[in-house]
Amino acid sequence: MKIAVDAMGGDYAPQAIVEGVMLAKKKLTDIEFQLYGDEQAIRQYVTDETNIQIIHTDEKIASDDEPVRAIRRKKNASMVLAAQAVKEGRADAVFSAGNTGALLAAGLFIVGRIKQIERPGLMTTMPVFTGEADAGFDFIDMGANADNKPEHLLQYAILASFYAKNVRHIDTPRVGLLNNGTEETKGSELTKNAFALLSAEKSIHFIGNVEARDLFQGVADVVVTDGFTGNAVLKSVEGTALSLMDLLKSSIMDSGMKGKVGALMLKDSLKQLKNKLDYSSHGGAVLFGLKAPVVKTHGSTGPEAVSHTISQIHTMLSTDVVGKLVTYFDAQSTSSDTK
Amino acid sequence: MKIAVDAMGGDYAPQAIVEGVMLAKKKLTDIEFQLYGDEQAIRQYVTDETNIQIIHTDEKIASDDEPVRAIRRKKNASMVLAAQAVKEGRADAVFSAGNTGALLAAGLFIVGRIKQIERPGLMTTMPVFTGEADAGFDFIDMGANADNKPEHLLQYAILASFYAKNVRHIDTPRVGLLNNGTEETKGSELTKNAFALLSAEKSIHFIGNVEARDLFQGVADVVVTDGFTGNAVLKSVEGTALSLMDLLKSSIMDSGMKGKVGALMLKDSLKQLKNKLDYSSHGGAVLFGLKAPVVKTHGSTGPEAVSHTISQIHTMLSTDVVGKLVTYFDAQSTSSDTK
Repeated sequence: MKIAVDAMGGDYAPQAIVEGVMLAKKKLTDIEFQLYGDEQAIRQYVTDETNIQIIHTDEKIASDDEPVRAIRRKKNASMVLAAQAVKEGRADAVFSAGNTGALLAAGLFIVGRIKQIERPGLMTTMPVFTGEADAGFDFIDMGANADNKPEHLLQYAILASFYAKNVRHIDTPRVGLLNNGTEETKGSELTKNAFALLSAEKSIHFIGNVEARDLFQGVADVVVTDGFTGNAVLKSVEGTALSLMDLLKSSIMDSGMKGKVGALMLKDSLKQLKNKLDYSSHGGAVLFGLKAPVVKTHGSTGPEAVSHTISQIHTMLSTDVVGKLVTYFDAQSTSSDTK
Repeated sequence: MKIAVDAMGGDYAPQAIVEGVMLAKKKLTDIEFQLYGDEQAIRQYVTDETNIQIIHTDEKIASDDEPVRAIRRKKNASMVLAAQAVKEGRADAVFSAGNTGALLAAGLFIVGRIKQIERPGLMTTMPVFTGEADAGFDFIDMGANADNKPEHLLQYAILASFYAKNVRHIDTPRVGLLNNGTEETKGSELTKNAFALLSAEKSIHFIGNVEARDLFQGVADVVVTDGFTGNAVLKSVEGTALSLMDLLKSSIMDSGMKGKVGALMLKDSLKQLKNKLDYSSHGGAVLFGLKAPVVKTHGSTGPEAVSHTISQIHTMLSTDVVGKLVTYFDAQSTSSDTK
């Protein structure tokens, strides 16, 4: 099991990335890591060289580089070399905390799509606030695409159902379509057509429309949407949560001694709240629909989250979820060829 | 100044509605209220009959009625009669806390659209968490339409700019386009085309793309989006805020004596937080683009919020914002006719 790591991506690279790899290595002894980037910078954080290979390169993609151009011109960037290793069979998965757009482009143009998947989608497991501590739902497309067709949403439902089943061990994942109402007749042209396709698909367990306000109550195990809406929903959730925490803080600061003492006494509760909100413990975002796992974490993540994401990639590789998807879509394409 | 009130719409009708009217009447003595609904039920909450006229009807639209059918079949429903009064010039505005879809249908089919406005949009003033207490932004379309064209977004920008200027007294309202990134090149086909139209429009102050995560930081005074995305954003904000408050509550309940005492000491801060979140103090949602103000509040609102919304309608009528819009679009249509 070989993971190609872009050691230079993210705000705290290479330190956070390499320290995260070191953490992951302790638990997961069957992974060989290829670290792409500045050898000297990387080496100072390598505390144990077992299963570590450093592939030196001076080039890297910046967070503000124009994605497609960066991938095409910076042939020796750490991210590009990592993707190239997967393409050529020298590695099984790519990990990066770098420029999201560039990673999408590297995934599409270098790693390549699964046959029949037109538009890979970005998927992450979001937390659910009720129920089990590890409850969550797989949300796809978080924003890899600005425009999607109904067929793409069907493909997302199949992809994410495979993920929920194999990686999250949910026997029959409930698939919901994000819509502007729960009734069957609701929706835009896109969601109405997607509803029809999802209803007709036998390989998934479609439960109908779900609304954004109910996502965190665990209404579904998989939620599909187009990338524009997915992006808007994620950013709304993020903006609301941050604004509320800020508001609570400033309201406490303005509240005099009593409020401050109260806040101190509530510290554990507030910390617990913050942990629950931190969805990096579920791992990173998968660019799903490619021939190999291509996984991204936030640019600002620390070693812990990097290690979590590597565990996630480990599960994806050991369950061969992508291989199963390739086989599934191959069979689909053969059966449609012979029709 | 005459407001046609659907006294039977909403969860606590007619009590909350009539009590709200009584509250509003104390401050706004120049409004004549027409209360449509069950006379006997209404009358028990009328504490002062000045400027009050009750128009009895037995029929009303239920919250789960199919909107268009309800409007067409229930000719004597309180909401339908209120809209009819505006159409026939007997009243200047409609207020309802009833079935949103039915009110949209009543607005479209009975009150009628302003010339050149293809798809009226639902608009509300959302709170901003930084800056002045009454800071906010006008968000349109919150979900009156499931599919919008770029031209509709341009019309929303003009409508909401008129509103921000006349009703909220902002000299040069900054108009933002909700998009999946702030860069000019970002977006779906819809938002890219809308961006071009908004940039070319001289009557508004377009400041470019804004992202959902920054809405509550006051990035713009007016934010335009299609109704599908607007609906998803609003429901995400609502869901996140409710889930967070629940989470905080249960985390306090689980935290033992210390946490509970802390929460008690923080009570004022938490209450302040809740007030800030309560955007009904800004008034209701306006179905904007019609020949008269048609305004909706939440079905669950109490007398205070009803009274706030009536103040909002009062400002809309006294500034004649809708009349100004009619004139503006008339001029546009004349100038395009003569081209």
